[in-house]
Amino acid sequence: MNGAESLLQTLVGCGVEVCFTNPGTSEMHFVAALDKQDGMRSVLGLFEGVVTGAADGYARMAGKPACTLLHLGPGLANGLANLHNARRARVPLVNVVGDHATYHRHLDAPLTSNIAGFADPVSGWIKASTSAMDVASDGAAAVAAAMTPPGQIATLILPADTAWGPASGPAQPVAAPRRAAATTGAIDDAAAALRSGQPCALLMNGAALGERGLELAGRIAQRTGAQLLADTFVTRIARGAGRVDVQRVPYFGEQAAEVLAPYRHLIFVATKAPVTFFAYPGKPSELTPKGCTGHTLATPEQDAIQVLEALCEAVGAQKSAPVTTARQQLSLPRGALTPQSAAQALGCLLPEGAIVVNEAATSGFAIPTLTAGAPQHDWLDLTGGAIGQGLPCAVGAAVASPSRRVLALEGDGSGMYTVQALWTMAREGLDVTTVIFSNRKYAILQVELLRVGAGNPGRKAEDMLSLNRPDLDWVALATGMGVPATRATTAEEFSNQLARSLAAPGPGLIEVVL
Amino acid sequence: MNGAESLLQTLVGCGVEVCFTNPGTSEMHFVAALDKQDGMRSVLGLFEGVVTGAADGYARMAGKPACTLLHLGPGLANGLANLHNARRARVPLVNVVGDHATYHRHLDAPLTSNIAGFADPVSGWIKASTSAMDVASDGAAAVAAAMTPPGQIATLILPADTAWGPASGPAQPVAAPRRAAATTGAIDDAAAALRSGQPCALLMNGAALGERGLELAGRIAQRTGAQLLADTFVTRIARGAGRVDVQRVPYFGEQAAEVLAPYRHLIFVATKAPVTFFAYPGKPSELTPKGCTGHTLATPEQDAIQVLEALCEAVGAQKSAPVTTARQQLSLPRGALTPQSAAQALGCLLPEGAIVVNEAATSGFAIPTLTAGAPQHDWLDLTGGAIGQGLPCAVGAAVASPSRRVLALEGDGSGMYTVQALWTMAREGLDVTTVIFSNRKYAILQVELLRVGAGNPGRKAEDMLSLNRPDLDWVALATGMGVPATRATTAEEFSNQLARSLAAPGPGLIEVVL
Repeated sequence: MNGAESLLQTLVGCGVEVCFTNPGTSEMHFVAALDKQDGMRSVLGLFEGVVTGAADGYARMAGKPACTLLHLGPGLANGLANLHNARRARVPLVNVVGDHATYHRHLDAPLTSNIAGFADPVSGWIKASTSAMDVASDGAAAVAAAMTPPGQIATLILPADTAWGPASGPAQPVAAPRRAAATTGAIDDAAAALRSGQPCALLMNGAALGERGLELAGRIAQRTGAQLLADTFVTRIARGAGRVDVQRVPYFGEQAAEVLAPYRHLIFVATKAPVTFFAYPGKPSELTPKGCTGHTLATPEQDAIQVLEALCEAVGAQKSAPVTTARQQLSLPRGALTPQSAAQALGCLLPEGAIVVNEAATSGFAIPTLTAGAPQHDWLDLTGGAIGQGLPCAVGAAVASPSRRVLALEGDGSGMYTVQALWTMAREGLDVTTVIFSNRKYAILQVELLRVGAGNPGRKAEDMLSLNRPDLDWVALATGMGVPATRATTAEEFSNQLARSLAAPGPGLIEVVL
Repeated sequence: MNGAESLLQTLVGCGVEVCFTNPGTSEMHFVAALDKQDGMRSVLGLFEGVVTGAADGYARMAGKPACTLLHLGPGLANGLANLHNARRARVPLVNVVGDHATYHRHLDAPLTSNIAGFADPVSGWIKASTSAMDVASDGAAAVAAAMTPPGQIATLILPADTAWGPASGPAQPVAAPRRAAATTGAIDDAAAALRSGQPCALLMNGAALGERGLELAGRIAQRTGAQLLADTFVTRIARGAGRVDVQRVPYFGEQAAEVLAPYRHLIFVATKAPVTFFAYPGKPSELTPKGCTGHTLATPEQDAIQVLEALCEAVGAQKSAPVTTARQQLSLPRGALTPQSAAQALGCLLPEGAIVVNEAATSGFAIPTLTAGAPQHDWLDLTGGAIGQGLPCAVGAAVASPSRRVLALEGDGSGMYTVQALWTMAREGLDVTTVIFSNRKYAILQVELLRVGAGNPGRKAEDMLSLNRPDLDWVALATGMGVPATRATTAEEFSNQLARSLAAPGPGLIEVVL
């Protein structure tokens, strides 16, 4: 048994079942080991941003890490933006990054680089194996590091000679630390705020936004009158008819301030005090209103479910019935295809158990409202603001949840970043329906240029914010990668195409021409 | 005048004429400043790997830096692989990376990351501006750093408030250090080797491979009988009929060892002792033969032209007539379309003054030989081994050299990495002919899997090395991004399509189905 085989057996033994990869020469022994190992599915991405974004999407749905297999520093570098998003999502993820053989590194061959340096800004744990005999135990340690609450990125650097050298066998799984319980003080403090008679809101993210967390929060809201809020961008939230709905803090600072203004107490559950996404000249960056007190009920590292249970008890809400969302009655839209009518069609047609991956930016603003009372579904956001996450995340979510339909809502600008993900959807036959909102611009930037006070865009500035000249043809792009695609120009066309794609096995893409 | 305007004026004053960009909210004041500044062309890429690869290609042809404008840590991260290649090419390049306002950073908003950490492995110079008043002088220092011989990457981090805050005006250009002259000792040492009567070779890269450097080296070879060699991958080399040809050190170690075996002296000009690209079990990584002495005539930092002139004089070769390549007589190929017949067509049709960007990997092995006696052209290689450099590099080379035809030779695997570059070619109307060698696999890896001793690939390993299921349709991909495209399945079809594309203004793509 060589080092690569010992690592792979160890990873499988630790419950890692999927390897998203784009390997190179230095990873060939790991690839050969995959051949001999039935317990690990290997999924090829044609660019590493697809690989790491898929590992993020997988972790959000599976609740455990996939591993990536990446080719030296540049292969890792190509995946860093989606690792940034995964870090912000606080998901478990194990990177295996091949490196030159230990004795080859000092020769500074062309592909040599500072791999640990590239990994550092996104990784909670980094180790470079030094011997084939240690690779297995390093792998077990990497999985435990990835599963350290709430979840983090563990990067294991695997020199080629530690992959091909002799190893003694796989290592035993290592237990990750348990989630820390919240302190009694924090629960008493939040309970006192909720009983104060002053306006209170719970601001939530992480596990608090799962079905059980929302139910507990809903009981507390019902008992105390507190408002339920969620961060602007969340890792995963359970939504739909029969579930407890929460209000999202809006993206733009002024709107966020308006939503937060009524509250004298903000109680943070698996998140922290709200701030604006960007700074704007002369405007505040911190969103906690003046005179409002922030209370950390649970940090992201702590056990949000346990703490919500304890708070429920502390305010006597165990038997309160949470308000849940009614099943919405929408009719299919007619006429012009707009962000609004597209959202209405999505609200009508979203299937039970869907996973919605949202990177639609400005074109997607109406969708949360119009899907709130749709059949039950999970919703995944762009957590780190690094665009190009949606299509890869959809790949990973579909691999983790083969019985569910994934709906990827994409801007044309964001979609182009990691457009190669479409090919992986086709190869793996994933049940992903991609909707491209093709407004042929970075519409958010046209808004932001004004908001930062940079004036009206002239021709050159306008050019940097637009995707026209030439227009992208998404039907051609998708079919070029083996994904059946159609173009919708009216609401009726979109509804028909969406219904067809949602019912057809395998991937499909609809270009919504706005 | 704000900081962004002062920086832009400074960059233009320092001779920076092109900004390759994909900006975001934190860069909007820089975008607005572009509007007001006629001296800077701005070119949008739909992914940052396009942006940085284009800046590399531009620098190789222009001999001076372009600037990039990138959106925070993730925008920089997306460009890192091609910055790795640019670092290995030793080209001058200035990154301007937007960041959150200085007072916003500590709030750890979603897009916050360790930008300097991302930049460090590829940058020779990094600075984060701290005040709008300093941005101009920081910009001048960045250009000087980029131009420090032989050329390096300078990364300037620009917090949003240093862009929008008041500045006093542009800064004066700062002189970069001159190239250091070689030492007399190094020249004497090389001359002694050349006069020793023992077999000698000059191994060259950098400026030594320009027209003047090759002419000088050719005189030395003619006078002394030395062989002229070049590194496997070079930043830029002048080629074609009437020029001095050099032998490349082959990629595979065994072949490289065979080429190097005859020599007792290797004289390094703007390069260092040869090593294999990867390590292979039980095979040597260092390629200098046993009993052969290496002599560093000039490091990459030193003045290769001056040192070759001095060596020419030292060996009395000033009046020797270098051997130059004869104009080749090839006929257009007929019949099957293979790497060999495609190379023959390229050799026949390559136009005078072309710029060849080579990322064709296994499919391109015959092309150097069959274009050696073609009309004069420049040839640019993948210097750092991070695939996805070819199409962006072609964009930059075309922007730098508007009167010349660029020919991008691409593998299908490499081409998919930064396929978004095709859109920029279309938008800018660049005279780039892209040839995709579509063998539907990572062919080099199928070779390497055997070479590293990992055994014959089984189904799962084979899957990770192939691009089929589904086949990529490059004609659809290119037309989807506005680039006219055709597909060739015979040698005649390829010759006809190539001749047509080379003659037509603007970009074109030919899918060579192998």
